[in-house]
Amino acid sequence: MAELNLDGIAARLESLEETILHRLLDRAQWRVNDAAYLSGASGFPGAEPRSLFELRLRSQEEMDSKFGRFCVPEERPFNKNLPKPSRTVNLPDTGVRLKDYDAVNLTEPLLNSYMLILPKICPAGDDGQYGSSVEHDVYAVQAIARRLHYGAIYVAESKFRQDAEGYKKLVEARDRDGLMEKLTRKDVEKKILERVKTKVRSLQANVNKSIRNTVRYEPIIVYYKDFIIPLTKHGEIVYLFNRVGND
Amino acid sequence: MAELNLDGIAARLESLEETILHRLLDRAQWRVNDAAYLSGASGFPGAEPRSLFELRLRSQEEMDSKFGRFCVPEERPFNKNLPKPSRTVNLPDTGVRLKDYDAVNLTEPLLNSYMLILPKICPAGDDGQYGSSVEHDVYAVQAIARRLHYGAIYVAESKFRQDAEGYKKLVEARDRDGLMEKLTRKDVEKKILERVKTKVRSLQANVNKSIRNTVRYEPIIVYYKDFIIPLTKHGEIVYLFNRVGND
Repeated sequence: MAELNLDGIAARLESLEETILHRLLDRAQWRVNDAAYLSGASGFPGAEPRSLFELRLRSQEEMDSKFGRFCVPEERPFNKNLPKPSRTVNLPDTGVRLKDYDAVNLTEPLLNSYMLILPKICPAGDDGQYGSSVEHDVYAVQAIARRLHYGAIYVAESKFRQDAEGYKKLVEARDRDGLMEKLTRKDVEKKILERVKTKVRSLQANVNKSIRNTVRYEPIIVYYKDFIIPLTKHGEIVYLFNRVGND
Repeated sequence: MAELNLDGIAARLESLEETILHRLLDRAQWRVNDAAYLSGASGFPGAEPRSLFELRLRSQEEMDSKFGRFCVPEERPFNKNLPKPSRTVNLPDTGVRLKDYDAVNLTEPLLNSYMLILPKICPAGDDGQYGSSVEHDVYAVQAIARRLHYGAIYVAESKFRQDAEGYKKLVEARDRDGLMEKLTRKDVEKKILERVKTKVRSLQANVNKSIRNTVRYEPIIVYYKDFIIPLTKHGEIVYLFNRVGND
């Protein structure tokens, strides 16, 4: 069960980082385009109050659900009431011990935070390219969601296995502060932030700035520091509360 | 009409290059996974002879079509008989002079060529992650298709406007060799290949090679040289044959 080795998990998280950055840099080729996120401005008759972005995300997830995406623990959907998979999906034992994978679903705070980072990475204004904007939004939020849930679920399970008794006691005492302290690895967090900074720069090192919008590393670092890292830890705690007793 | 300025078009092509490379590098995180491209191995009951990749591409394009993607000249679909757009799409005059945008549709040779590059960029073998593989295939072929059709259509229209009489004569004489000679700009082609090589390297400069598969630049250069560039020029000729007389 390679997934439950902490080094293996850290490696997977690092690889998912690249994909998140690719997708944010691609989204940043379009303007913010507020209209794509406004209720009733989607261009789809009768779709109010849903925005074009909401419609696109739902449509993507309906397709993904039929293809079996949400049978995977780290793929948690943004929408409810999606169609069942029409495909047989055979997964090996992942080692995840949750009765319902959606017990750890961080998509709602993710969406809120994504709307905050968008104007910090995209040029201001409206270029009319709403379809392309929301297409790339969906790719980006799905990549972020995969990283968040993978981190929350697998990191927590792996740490739990290192000290099942210790975590169990804290969960039973409902000691969230104690859990947070036990989970936190400041050195790892610092390393992630340094790595993201280096990558945002090197991914854009040979970009022709007159034709491609470049993104500063600062908002992405802040996003990791204030959102991705703390929300992953919050997810770890939720995992542990739902995990204890499922052996 | 900024689209019809050759420098503006070259800039757009250069920006699309980055997106293609991001997507190929992301796909290369999974193994080749032959089963995803085999008839009747999709896991969808009754879907034979279609492969998982074919099913995913069709499903994606059905969604995209409803969202209006194929109203855009450079977005040409891989599939036929797609649903009509359910959204109102208002495009400015693109300057493209084609009666049917699908007169220039290069998706069939694109798919064939993509299946050839896949084993050159992905690690050999099977990791069972067919869903993720085809998801990233679809992202990659759509990015390549956008670049090919954008190049073929807009470059040809722009060149045509520089010497409408000259191109018209060659088209009327069915002189494909003469058209190819008139269209070709060897210096630009050389520059593209050098740029792609530099980008493939710099995009991966800070990647941790022990956890993320890296891709050599050679197969991507060959892909541009033997496929993307010549097929774009073929598309330009097709455009010109369909364009003459549509003023």
